[in-house]
Amino acid sequence: MGEKGVTLEELKKRMAEFARDRDWDQFHSPRNLLLALVGEVGELSEIFQWRGEVARGLPGWKEEEREHLGEELSDVLLYLVRLSDVCGIDLGEAALRKLQLNALKYPVHLSKGSSKKHTQINANAPAVADSNGDC
Amino acid sequence: MGEKGVTLEELKKRMAEFARDRDWDQFHSPRNLLLALVGEVGELSEIFQWRGEVARGLPGWKEEEREHLGEELSDVLLYLVRLSDVCGIDLGEAALRKLQLNALKYPVHLSKGSSKKHTQINANAPAVADSNGDC
Amino acid sequence: MGEKGVTLEELKKRMAEFARDRDWDQFHSPRNLLLALVGEVGELSEIFQWRGEVARGLPGWKEEEREHLGEELSDVLLYLVRLSDVCGIDLGEAALRKLQLNALKYPVHLSKGSSKKHTQINANAPAVADSNGDC
Amino acid sequence: MGEKGVTLEELKKRMAEFARDRDWDQFHSPRNLLLALVGEVGELSEIFQWRGEVARGLPGWKEEEREHLGEELSDVLLYLVRLSDVCGIDLGEAALRKLQLNALKYPVHLSKGSSKKHTQINANAPAVADSNGDC
Repeated sequence: MGEKGVTLEELKKRMAEFARDRDWDQFHSPRNLLLALVGEVGELSEIFQWRGEVARGLPGWKEEEREHLGEELSDVLLYLVRLSDVCGIDLGEAALRKLQLNALKYPVHLSKGSSKKHTQINANAPAVADSNGDC
Repeated sequence: MGEKGVTLEELKKRMAEFARDRDWDQFHSPRNLLLALVGEVGELSEIFQWRGEVARGLPGWKEEEREHLGEELSDVLLYLVRLSDVCGIDLGEAALRKLQLNALKYPVHLSKGSSKKHTQINANAPAVADSNGDC
Repeated sequence: MGEKGVTLEELKKRMAEFARDRDWDQFHSPRNLLLALVGEVGELSEIFQWRGEVARGLPGWKEEEREHLGEELSDVLLYLVRLSDVCGIDLGEAALRKLQLNALKYPVHLSKGSSKKHTQINANAPAVADSNGDC
Repeated sequence: MGEKGVTLEELKKRMAEFARDRDWDQFHSPRNLLLALVGEVGELSEIFQWRGEVARGLPGWKEEEREHLGEELSDVLLYLVRLSDVCGIDLGEAALRKLQLNALKYPVHLSKGSSKKHTQINANAPAVADSNGDC
């Protein structure tokens, strides 16, 4: 890990090792992992479901609530890393490319202070090649 | 980035900068970001929805389909990183801790070749402290 | 439809007919439909994602926004009805049974004004048979 | 209930009554209910997550597994009905309208045997007014 922090590559390797040690590769098909990820997103949502709006930094949350949140965020991440791996997608590289794409889709001068989708903000601007839709 | 690959820390910084440049901090509340993440998980699911079972490595998928998949996986990741950041959770650290917790919850000798939840596999084994439920 | 309103049975029949007319039964496997449902939940979430808290009745929403919301709510419903059908589950009957179960899990005197889960509110009360967890 | 089956209207009334009896209206804001719905979709997904492809009719599933599935399907339905209600959307009416819209978007002769999106199947056909994207 070192001073640069946790890499997606490291998490990928550890998840692969974890699965291999337990003979879990047989369960880790793309759609199985995707549904497991959806399950974890559900658990993450449960943490926020009855709270009404929550402020940044989670003022007033107990330490155990923060820990629980950290676990559910991690579960989503770990399944996402694993899903990417079994699909043969380099998630880190893809994320860097997506950041660049987003910078093109949301030019600062057109999107400042606006939550509109790029398909809306660019309506009168030079078209940006993109067929999928959104950030 | 260097030889160790993309870190969660780097993605966090770049997402924060991206939002700051566009005055988007006002929109990036925890629940707004959570719902945006759910939206991206929906787009990820759409890629897999009519395909029936999909084999590891995605044999037969076109290059543009893989690229699209990489983009949706990235969108989920980027919102997850951003959500963790505005909640004040160190996602990388939390993920490493969760990996350790999972190793305790799913000991190799009890979980080998089984997709049972730890609450089931450990039914006759020494209890592992955990109240949240699952991997 | 008549004076009693729209039944789940009617929606089920119309969805089955719709699929049959288009030779879509081949695509309507349980997991395909489940992922399609997740996709629609994503689109539903997108409607709410950048709005911050939204009041009941949606004050200030435009007519076209309400219509769009009605469409996304319907998409989730229609896939849910279809998924239940291909799984051989009578959704209406199951829903009535679940309402009864919820009444047992959340007795008025124990749950009044509280958003706690039944596993928490019943901690000191006579146990209610239930293994799944929550409402 | 009678011979016509369970109506969405009836479920709506029972959910409203359930909430009123428990003073839960204070928790039932649109986004709270939406996140609760996402939580239930997660539980539904967990049922299917490690199974690989599942055939229609769920051959081989135990009675208790079918019951559990019926409960999770119901939970999604009940929150969906409740969410529609607090948003002031008539879900039954919206669903009937969406069925009509889908019939226009997916004409039998163009969509027979194809899982393509209407935006793809209609590429060379007379345009159907629709801005949201998909079924």
